[in-house]
Amino acid sequence: MKNRQVLLASYPRGPIKPSNFQVTETELRPVRDGEFLLRNQYFSLDAGFRQWMQEGASDNYLAAMPLGEPAMSITLGEVVESKAPSFPKGTQILARSSWQDYVITNGSDITIPIDNPANMPLYYFAGVLGPTGITAHLGMLNVGEVKAGEDVLVSAAASAVGTVAGQIAKLKGARVVGTASTQEKCSWLVDAVGLDAAINYKTSAPLDRLVKDAFPDGIDVYFDNVGGELLSAAAGNLKEFARIALCGSVSSYDTDQTAPGIRNIWELVTKRAMMRGFMFSDYVEDAPAILAEITGWLQEGKLASFDHITDGLENTPQAFCDMLAGMNFGKSIVRLF
Amino acid sequence: MKNRQVLLASYPRGPIKPSNFQVTETELRPVRDGEFLLRNQYFSLDAGFRQWMQEGASDNYLAAMPLGEPAMSITLGEVVESKAPSFPKGTQILARSSWQDYVITNGSDITIPIDNPANMPLYYFAGVLGPTGITAHLGMLNVGEVKAGEDVLVSAAASAVGTVAGQIAKLKGARVVGTASTQEKCSWLVDAVGLDAAINYKTSAPLDRLVKDAFPDGIDVYFDNVGGELLSAAAGNLKEFARIALCGSVSSYDTDQTAPGIRNIWELVTKRAMMRGFMFSDYVEDAPAILAEITGWLQEGKLASFDHITDGLENTPQAFCDMLAGMNFGKSIVRLF
Repeated sequence: MKNRQVLLASYPRGPIKPSNFQVTETELRPVRDGEFLLRNQYFSLDAGFRQWMQEGASDNYLAAMPLGEPAMSITLGEVVESKAPSFPKGTQILARSSWQDYVITNGSDITIPIDNPANMPLYYFAGVLGPTGITAHLGMLNVGEVKAGEDVLVSAAASAVGTVAGQIAKLKGARVVGTASTQEKCSWLVDAVGLDAAINYKTSAPLDRLVKDAFPDGIDVYFDNVGGELLSAAAGNLKEFARIALCGSVSSYDTDQTAPGIRNIWELVTKRAMMRGFMFSDYVEDAPAILAEITGWLQEGKLASFDHITDGLENTPQAFCDMLAGMNFGKSIVRLF
Repeated sequence: MKNRQVLLASYPRGPIKPSNFQVTETELRPVRDGEFLLRNQYFSLDAGFRQWMQEGASDNYLAAMPLGEPAMSITLGEVVESKAPSFPKGTQILARSSWQDYVITNGSDITIPIDNPANMPLYYFAGVLGPTGITAHLGMLNVGEVKAGEDVLVSAAASAVGTVAGQIAKLKGARVVGTASTQEKCSWLVDAVGLDAAINYKTSAPLDRLVKDAFPDGIDVYFDNVGGELLSAAAGNLKEFARIALCGSVSSYDTDQTAPGIRNIWELVTKRAMMRGFMFSDYVEDAPAILAEITGWLQEGKLASFDHITDGLENTPQAFCDMLAGMNFGKSIVRLF
């Protein structure tokens, strides 16, 4: 059986380009005992995977993706053939897998069967009901401990995690300001996502000034998706006992430059503030309760899923690069069929 | 009555010098209703106060000390005259006060009557049984949550807070490495304080390499008294779920340079690590229990108080500058009589 794959063909120098990938077609080998055949229906495009496309990358979490192999990704698919009793045919699965039509696996990678009693759209499980939603929930509630009336900053607020994180802070009664890279996305954050205000960080004004103007009394919770200069600006404008949820550092992913240091870390002492990095994969046991809560919010209309869907495996490289360039509104997903 | 004072005479440019201070003598005014007269017996010399000796300093905690006024300090003294019923004559007091023989106050600044049922040396209450000890305890246990078998780094380990923090980690069963600025202090940290090893950060080797060699498997808890390059090096060599207790940033106090940014903050995400600033003054309610525990350790011989005592108010400027230059072994105290 034919299997189309999107390979990482070369390591990027500077921003990654579609030409760093190559779409090929191979022949699938037979499924062996203990394995099953997964047909991918959606790829989740996540900025965090960019760092493992960097030559020599190694962060004790994952190493650099090998060249000539399908690029790693969170995927959503269905078991179409099985010689593994725990994964019968028809099982829908969220996996840390790769960009190809089909995958043969024994499920030993991060593979989670999908439970969909509320009959939600399947692609939600690559977004608001997947790692994206769990990450937003953990960052805003477990790390950020946001409370009603607090002042919250969300960076990359028009991103997949950002749109969910911002909405969760809003439904908890906080005032929420998001950052985005264009005036169009800023308007969308206020009009569609429902944030209180948005900062276009690509204007000529210094970030320190933009953040100070948006938070004259300081920040209680900063949900950080970008690191870099915005993290420095936020750290320099905290309220006492502020919390910074370190989710990602997209400003340093798509580059081969060494990131500059973060300024204003000393402010964490004078403000008795906290900064914590987190990853959804540490919270497997909490995931069902988190997803049940998010499902409830979706059903009650308190939370919306914002999805940016691209059709066709062959369009994955362009869609991934567009997402890294910030051209997406909400969760970037590739639909295969 | 005559009152000698140590004034902040000029704001420093670069490292502070004894010539930035001036010893004068004034006449005390009478004590009014609601006030009392405190006779200072000890000054606690704390690196943290250096930052408020900087021109234009303002961090929402305290502003720059005014010129021509006695320099602020934690002090230890006794009420010798009182028109305030809550502070009768004979009361021994820990205060955030200033460098002078006598202070007239209504107690509205941070003033804590001393309870000394275990009959400890009075100057302990400016050190191991004062903010110093509380700070060490909070940073290592409340923020750091140190556990037996963990690998712990303490910077400025020969400092007042450092000697207590390192000992607390040891008595909890951790492996503890301290940093200091001379080989003599490094030897003292191992031989007298009882740490497992010490790093002389003034050798020519890069800090990143020194930290990596001392912690080949990474750091669980970093008790940070210095900020700057050592914080960058520690952040780049953490174990998963590491904790960084941000206590001070002495590397940036005694300078008029803008501190460089902290590198490796992104590692907090991949290691799911936490960094939190704290100040003892937020834990007034917890202080009695903390001090009772420390008193117990002192009585059982599990913890020692290391004190560096200078005699004479007139020697305070030199002693303070020596402390900032790292010439002290343990807690720096000035004894007035």
